[in-house]
Amino acid sequence: MLDNVKENLLTHVNFTDEEIVNLISKLESKLLKKNHFLLREGETGKHVAFLNKGLIRLYYVKEGKEHNSGFFRSGSWVSEYASFLHKKPSLFYIEALDETELFLLSYDNMQKLYHQGKAFERLGRLIAENLFHAYFKRNMSLILDSPEERYLTFLKENASLIELIPLKHIASYVGVEPESLSRIRKRINKLQPK
Amino acid sequence: MLDNVKENLLTHVNFTDEEIVNLISKLESKLLKKNHFLLREGETGKHVAFLNKGLIRLYYVKEGKEHNSGFFRSGSWVSEYASFLHKKPSLFYIEALDETELFLLSYDNMQKLYHQGKAFERLGRLIAENLFHAYFKRNMSLILDSPEERYLTFLKENASLIELIPLKHIASYVGVEPESLSRIRKRINKLQPK
Repeated sequence: MLDNVKENLLTHVNFTDEEIVNLISKLESKLLKKNHFLLREGETGKHVAFLNKGLIRLYYVKEGKEHNSGFFRSGSWVSEYASFLHKKPSLFYIEALDETELFLLSYDNMQKLYHQGKAFERLGRLIAENLFHAYFKRNMSLILDSPEERYLTFLKENASLIELIPLKHIASYVGVEPESLSRIRKRINKLQPK
Repeated sequence: MLDNVKENLLTHVNFTDEEIVNLISKLESKLLKKNHFLLREGETGKHVAFLNKGLIRLYYVKEGKEHNSGFFRSGSWVSEYASFLHKKPSLFYIEALDETELFLLSYDNMQKLYHQGKAFERLGRLIAENLFHAYFKRNMSLILDSPEERYLTFLKENASLIELIPLKHIASYVGVEPESLSRIRKRINKLQPK
C-alpha cells in the first residue's frame, strides 16, 4: 500500500531506509469519496497529501463561479501550500473527483522531520520549488497564452486524464465556457492527421 | 559591505561561522546603474541575487506593454526563479530603478552548497517557500481584489518605497492606468482623517 509513496520519495531524494521508515511512520491514511473534500475555502490546510489513488481537483470560487486551477492524479503531492505554510484560511477547495486514497503529512510532523536531517530539508525544498514552478507556469500561461494554447498544453501534460475529467472542468481550467472548448476541440481535430 | 547579507542569512537559518564564510566566498558583487538590467526576457537567469543597496523592478511585456510584477529593496533576494531553476528563457525583465548593488550566487554554486549541509538546504527551502508565497499572494490578489484593495495593500507593505517609485510603475503593479490610480489616491486621501 505504501509502495507508491516510497518510490516517489526515492525518485526525489536519496533517503536511507531508516529515514523512509521515519517519514512513513508519520503519514496518516485518508479515504475520500467522490465529490468529498480534503479542504474547503476558509479552512486551514493542515497537511500536504500524497495522492496514492484517485483524482483531485483544486479550485477557487469567485462571484459564485468555480474556477479550476489544477488536477492531480496518483503519485502527486497535493496541498493548498500558502494556507499550509502560514496557517491562513485557504482560498481554494480540494475535491476528490473519484474515490481517492491519500497519505497525509501534518505541518507539525513536517517541521519535526526538517530538524532530523538534510534529506528532509531537501524534500521540503523540492516540494516548494515544484509548487512554485507549477503555479508560475499556470499563471503565466493564463496571462500570455490563448485558450487554445492552454488546451494543447493540458492535452500534452495530462493525456491520461482527458477521459476522466468532465468537459466543463477542463473548460474552466482552460479559462473558457464549455461551448468554446467544444469549438476549440473541433478545430484541433480537423487539423490533426487522420 | 557584506554585513547586510550576513545579517539576512542569520535571521533565516542558524548558520555556523564557517558556513557563512563558505557561502559568502561564493558571492560575486555586481553594480547596476539606474535603468540597467540584471536579466532580460529570453535570457536565462543564472543567479539568485541579494540586493544590498538600491531598488529593483520585475516586469513582463505583453503586446508591447510593460506589466510590473514586483519591486525589491535592499535586504531582499531577487531572481526569475523559474528561469533559474530550469535553465529556461526568462519571461521577465529585472531592472534597476536606482544605482543598485547586488551579490550574486550562481546556480552551480547553489547546488554545491546544497550538498554541503542541512543549513544550505534549509536556506533553499525558505527561498522557494517565500517565492511561492509572494507569487501566490500577488496572483490571488490580481484575481480576487479590486485595484483599490491592491493599492492599499501595496501602501501597507511598501510604505518606504512609495516616494521612490514613479506613479506609472505603481499603477502598472496595481493593474490600472495612471489616471485611474490618481482617482483612487484622491478617494483614499478624502477618507483619511486629517
